[in-house]
Amino acid sequence: MAVRVEILTIGTELVTGLVVNTNGAWLARRVTAVGGHVTRIVTVRDDEGEIAGALRDALSRAEVVITTGGLGPTPDDMTMACVAKALGRRLVLNEEALEMVRRTYAILYEEGVVKSPEMTPEREKMAMLPEGAEPLPNPVGAAPGAAIEHEGRFVFCLPGVPREMERMYEESVEPRLRRLTGASLSVTATIKLHCTDESSIAGVIREASRAFPWAYIKSHPGRLAREGGIHVTVTVFAGDAETLSTRLEEVERFLKERFKNMGIRVISSDENHQ
Amino acid sequence: MAVRVEILTIGTELVTGLVVNTNGAWLARRVTAVGGHVTRIVTVRDDEGEIAGALRDALSRAEVVITTGGLGPTPDDMTMACVAKALGRRLVLNEEALEMVRRTYAILYEEGVVKSPEMTPEREKMAMLPEGAEPLPNPVGAAPGAAIEHEGRFVFCLPGVPREMERMYEESVEPRLRRLTGASLSVTATIKLHCTDESSIAGVIREASRAFPWAYIKSHPGRLAREGGIHVTVTVFAGDAETLSTRLEEVERFLKERFKNMGIRVISSDENHQ
Repeated sequence: MAVRVEILTIGTELVTGLVVNTNGAWLARRVTAVGGHVTRIVTVRDDEGEIAGALRDALSRAEVVITTGGLGPTPDDMTMACVAKALGRRLVLNEEALEMVRRTYAILYEEGVVKSPEMTPEREKMAMLPEGAEPLPNPVGAAPGAAIEHEGRFVFCLPGVPREMERMYEESVEPRLRRLTGASLSVTATIKLHCTDESSIAGVIREASRAFPWAYIKSHPGRLAREGGIHVTVTVFAGDAETLSTRLEEVERFLKERFKNMGIRVISSDENHQ
Repeated sequence: MAVRVEILTIGTELVTGLVVNTNGAWLARRVTAVGGHVTRIVTVRDDEGEIAGALRDALSRAEVVITTGGLGPTPDDMTMACVAKALGRRLVLNEEALEMVRRTYAILYEEGVVKSPEMTPEREKMAMLPEGAEPLPNPVGAAPGAAIEHEGRFVFCLPGVPREMERMYEESVEPRLRRLTGASLSVTATIKLHCTDESSIAGVIREASRAFPWAYIKSHPGRLAREGGIHVTVTVFAGDAETLSTRLEEVERFLKERFKNMGIRVISSDENHQ
């Protein structure tokens, strides 16, 4: 099934150009790799009317809407209220989300990051979700996300901080999206290179990403890898094991050929099935 | 007058996440600086229905729509046809645009970049504009842009290549936008710093951009400047000379204060009125 996905990135800092919308591109690439069709990426400012309007528009066109931003404790964080409004639901205190927020502040208090573990109205605000929403855990921040099924469509709300957004997408959104697109299987191969200049292989990574839209290909700098060289990870998605292994072979062959032509030696390559 | 501006960035490479939408952020910042209110940034793929639909949506909400991308010679470059469709106009060969394209290829031929100066259907395609459009010269590329007034609203079509888009925005779009917003005057001050590490002042530039949305503030690396240090340019816009000079003073005071606190010496500062 072709699953149309719209990405709604929320934040005044985006429509005033203070921040480049890297979240939109990151999500677009990941969604494309699992077989979703990203039809629009829309950016609006922190304004209730604008957000709710853009959400309604998106839901009239796409099966899945992923929002980023506006989940924090301040008054300009209003995504959950706007989602509730757009779906005609009430905004309610979600007990499970409240427990997540409470646990986060208990840990932050123990670590000496915050002065008090007590719930304040600001902290409680982050547990206010549209009625019937499922809270999504945020392992690297305070604000939970939300998954909402509505008349056969899905809204996923993620935070705007890239490392929180990426982690929550990977843990909570991508598995559901893969069930919707039928890309239920995946395999990740890691190719270790005898090369430390990541920029020299950027063109090849982009070329491969363009040639194989159902693959998520990424290079990791050598300094993060113990072996001292660049690692390239290739994650491939498919609905059945045969397609999966054909696809992986195809991408690996492409990359290894290119690296060979560039005189870059492949040290090793491993697979990790999920 | 509050002028609502929507930015429509067109390109399959954007909705698949192969390219980060830096054009959107660049335009948003420039439009904000001249007093425009960027209400949405929308990204769609190279698809006639999607582009025309997004354009119609944008024109129903905003006084000004700026598009980027889709002006080139290949069949997936279809912005002009979609603008024509959305506005209910015919797509016609624009003689002035044709002359621009012809001149460009004559120069490219003289320079040995292309093998023939002759017009081909592909080259001629770049001169097909919506009826009544004014072609906008492209001093750094082949495809002209377009300015179209339609029922009191304005559509500006710019290319997707950042350096072409930026130059054409500055030369052809910004002056018109300033007439619409009333930010008819501008002044640019250049602050030269005794400092070569551009990243060390990135936070201050961002802070100032946030504090003074009607200013366009940018740092230029020392290696490009003959004097050897970083240059910071501050462009301020206003409707009258008094506001203009008050605004410039305000930003300059803010920046110099911050640089002083960081121990960065200001070498000189000049003004250049437009």
